[in-house]
Amino acid sequence: MGRPIVLLTDFGGKDHYVGVMKGVIHSLLPDPAIIDLSHEVAPQDVVSAHILLKNAYPYFPRKSIFVAVVDPGVGTGRPIIGVETADHVFLAPDNGILGFLGSAEPIERIVQITNRKYFREPVSDTFHGRDIFAPVAAHLALGIPLGEMGPVRKDLKRLSLPGPVVSAGLIEGRVVSVDRFGNLVTDIPGGILPPKADLTISVGKTLIKGLSKTYDSKKEREPLALVGSDGMIEIAVNRGNAAETLSIPVGSPVQIRSKIS
Amino acid sequence: MGRPIVLLTDFGGKDHYVGVMKGVIHSLLPDPAIIDLSHEVAPQDVVSAHILLKNAYPYFPRKSIFVAVVDPGVGTGRPIIGVETADHVFLAPDNGILGFLGSAEPIERIVQITNRKYFREPVSDTFHGRDIFAPVAAHLALGIPLGEMGPVRKDLKRLSLPGPVVSAGLIEGRVVSVDRFGNLVTDIPGGILPPKADLTISVGKTLIKGLSKTYDSKKEREPLALVGSDGMIEIAVNRGNAAETLSIPVGSPVQIRSKIS
Amino acid sequence: MGRPIVLLTDFGGKDHYVGVMKGVIHSLLPDPAIIDLSHEVAPQDVVSAHILLKNAYPYFPRKSIFVAVVDPGVGTGRPIIGVETADHVFLAPDNGILGFLGSAEPIERIVQITNRKYFREPVSDTFHGRDIFAPVAAHLALGIPLGEMGPVRKDLKRLSLPGPVVSAGLIEGRVVSVDRFGNLVTDIPGGILPPKADLTISVGKTLIKGLSKTYDSKKEREPLALVGSDGMIEIAVNRGNAAETLSIPVGSPVQIRSKIS
Repeated sequence: MGRPIVLLTDFGGKDHYVGVMKGVIHSLLPDPAIIDLSHEVAPQDVVSAHILLKNAYPYFPRKSIFVAVVDPGVGTGRPIIGVETADHVFLAPDNGILGFLGSAEPIERIVQITNRKYFREPVSDTFHGRDIFAPVAAHLALGIPLGEMGPVRKDLKRLSLPGPVVSAGLIEGRVVSVDRFGNLVTDIPGGILPPKADLTISVGKTLIKGLSKTYDSKKEREPLALVGSDGMIEIAVNRGNAAETLSIPVGSPVQIRSKIS
Repeated sequence: MGRPIVLLTDFGGKDHYVGVMKGVIHSLLPDPAIIDLSHEVAPQDVVSAHILLKNAYPYFPRKSIFVAVVDPGVGTGRPIIGVETADHVFLAPDNGILGFLGSAEPIERIVQITNRKYFREPVSDTFHGRDIFAPVAAHLALGIPLGEMGPVRKDLKRLSLPGPVVSAGLIEGRVVSVDRFGNLVTDIPGGILPPKADLTISVGKTLIKGLSKTYDSKKEREPLALVGSDGMIEIAVNRGNAAETLSIPVGSPVQIRSKIS
Repeated sequence: MGRPIVLLTDFGGKDHYVGVMKGVIHSLLPDPAIIDLSHEVAPQDVVSAHILLKNAYPYFPRKSIFVAVVDPGVGTGRPIIGVETADHVFLAPDNGILGFLGSAEPIERIVQITNRKYFREPVSDTFHGRDIFAPVAAHLALGIPLGEMGPVRKDLKRLSLPGPVVSAGLIEGRVVSVDRFGNLVTDIPGGILPPKADLTISVGKTLIKGLSKTYDSKKEREPLALVGSDGMIEIAVNRGNAAETLSIPVGSPVQIRSKIS
């Protein structure tokens, strides 16, 4: 078994699209190590795929090949890129999914994937997951260097995500995702909160005093805030679903006020 | 790792049924190569399973063992069959799922699966996926020939699907599935359209002029038609969900008018 | 490939939680055999996870390592336990999920998982699936004995599930789950029914005479009762969805009256 191939798509489980990508990989690569990261990204939601991959990739083994196919522009002129870092290779359409690369995970090389020698022919205009991403990933796992796949590019597309605004005594961010438990994940890193301060977190009509350590730190059905497993501030309801209970959708503003105690 | 075992069921992910099938395979076969094609076929929807498998199987490696368990007649007299072609083996209840075999994929042998030596005992009347399909697939992957599994049969059940009606200047078909993106997949192969003709595609109250090349070929939220990744005409909405936007359910008629230009 | 690692969680497929657990396992263990049992347990539903695992584990190979993470108390004082039986190891929070162990599957040893040498550091308070369960399972698969993971414990938590009440001519149980097909699975084992008796099964306003052998034994859309694949009485509707047709939710009482014939 060689390098893990980690798949992230918006293809869902109902159709045959993910299975077919795996069939193509198995056709080229005996005994592949394929890991499903998620296939339930909302259709064409590049921002969510970006956040998910950014949070998940550090937990995978060295030499992993990440294949992110959330691709509303499939078949148009948008480039497909491969990005090599010290530890990994990332394949994706150049639509911003990989825009988190560079700071925490320094880029060694960006290649535009153009070498049809490593594609599945005929290449359709509608399913590059099957015709380009899967066979290119299989060839990378077989040991073909990324540099063989096409010419070097200078840069990759970045998403302009707002990010939290920090001022004296106030941090303003927003809810960027809701997980399966209904926890509201924000774009506010726990690390930027002032230590030893009295914090008040507000979202919608809900005011929460202080940070909790665990989801179980308050009474049942009570809202709480904590630093989640990806290091970001989350709002949860103990043994409940915060998104439903508090009626808070993705995109809602979140404010954290601090008084040094 | 031996021959891939490709699973297609209507069991869903909520229950333990798929996991248990994999447990049985792992119990008989060290280091199996199990690939999930889909487990989200609508319950007991034999026609959808037939279409999905027909579209997907060509992308899997030679020697794949396809196991299709959509089986409303489980435990009744309906036979279970194994079908051998030059490249693959297919296992399924003889209810029409495998009815696409024969033309594009010539049949070498049909066997009725009856040899209890390769079943899991006791065989229930309600879960042949666990008690027959999984152990028979594992034994095939171990190298037991299909001919050992039971007597030869002459034919298999075919579904009587309507298929498109072609007349001068008009092709009439229907929507046979809606994928996760809301794309309306029809039963009209792109290959039967007259080349170099002015085409008008109509579905419900929507009229679409001409075929597009990609999902992104029209303005955002505009409907379009194209030849999808399985070679069939699809109706889509750029960056949208055609099934919802156009309110078109599965089964709806689709007409394509052509004028030679 | 070593011992199978069987995953059961309430993490769903939308988020990266399951993928990240697999990433951690792959980082420690080359060529792991990971089997997904289910990740669609209802959030924090310990009772459903208990029933699912109890029904599923016997079908997995010897030496399987079951990892059950349905864990509303994550980060609080609740212990994590490893339970060794003759055939398997089970890892879970000590919240009742493993309470079925002991009778059919005699316990050889219970260990409280405390040895941070086998954890991923830093250990968060919110995602022990990633930081404790995944790395401990990988180390077990690598051959580290369970006894290395912490001190021996005397007992484990049991759920107090009501179970069926049996009196002369009457068995009273309840619906404990609804599967994807809408079949109502009860807590009444088929084995406790009097043989050769005239049975009448009642649930809600529905009366069913006698047990059927298969889901197809009555006319289409008619309700029926049978012994399901896990040995429990189920109520189904032929080619239909019993839960929807009969409007019966989980928890509903089920009565079986018997007259010796």
